[in-house]
Amino acid sequence: MIGLLLWRSALTPIRHSTFDPTAFAWEGVTGRAYKDDPGTARGMAWQGLTRHTLVRAPEAGVSFEVRYFEIAPGGFSSLEKHEHVHVVVAARGHGLALVGDTVVELAPMDIVETPPFAPHRWVNPGDEPFGFLCTVEGERDRPSPVDDDEWQALLSDPRTASFAH
Amino acid sequence: MIGLLLWRSALTPIRHSTFDPTAFAWEGVTGRAYKDDPGTARGMAWQGLTRHTLVRAPEAGVSFEVRYFEIAPGGFSSLEKHEHVHVVVAARGHGLALVGDTVVELAPMDIVETPPFAPHRWVNPGDEPFGFLCTVEGERDRPSPVDDDEWQALLSDPRTASFAH
Repeated sequence: MIGLLLWRSALTPIRHSTFDPTAFAWEGVTGRAYKDDPGTARGMAWQGLTRHTLVRAPEAGVSFEVRYFEIAPGGFSSLEKHEHVHVVVAARGHGLALVGDTVVELAPMDIVETPPFAPHRWVNPGDEPFGFLCTVEGERDRPSPVDDDEWQALLSDPRTASFAH
Repeated sequence: MIGLLLWRSALTPIRHSTFDPTAFAWEGVTGRAYKDDPGTARGMAWQGLTRHTLVRAPEAGVSFEVRYFEIAPGGFSSLEKHEHVHVVVAARGHGLALVGDTVVELAPMDIVETPPFAPHRWVNPGDEPFGFLCTVEGERDRPSPVDDDEWQALLSDPRTASFAH
């Protein structure tokens, strides 16, 4: 099973993965590139991100997926939007989330959700890794870049201008 | 919105809840009794558990729910089974999970899943609170007690006997 250790037993296979706090990593789970092909559309570049798929749908018997994303100091995700909702629980370090026209500071265990079609970008402006759990529906739409109006709105607001790049 | 602070903005309402590490609690989220009526069936008793609903389906725009459960020292959940899967990420302290015929030790960020119809019970044998995030489908079946064969199997295995009460 990809990414999760199976403990076979007489009754049932139990999916279980121990966490290594020193490496901030889960046994059997490998970090991968955030996106294979981010495209060249405005805002879709990203930097310093790894994705760790902890629970994959539907193989886990659920319709949702749980991923851990980690952003290196100075890194950022794509500026994008989509219909599906992100439920984020911060897990390591500190970072910023642009969600719609709001910037949210995140510390471990803080929760933030991205509403449908809200532009969003995760940023690590600090000097330590910033990581978060992100749960999504297994079946979900593809991300899109922000449109011209959204881009201009971000640029025109001093709180959000630095997220439009 | 129950349990989550809304940050209203010009574009979108952003759901965001900050975490208080001292209280181990989320702003706007109140802990409630684990179950209103556990029933009197064998193994369904529970002790010292609170449930904090962090993300509720479908109001959050998702089909899954994210809850935080905390078990006081000496506490335990019902011994039960159901078709729906639990995805658990340990968050606070240390505890034990009976899953099927296996006992798993849990420390923060460890992950364990309960397969469909696997009997399970969460136990805090320590002297500090034990807490975990638990994600489930929003639409899910009701728990059932274990059957006679399952009960006897738990009792006959010295690793699991203490979970059958």
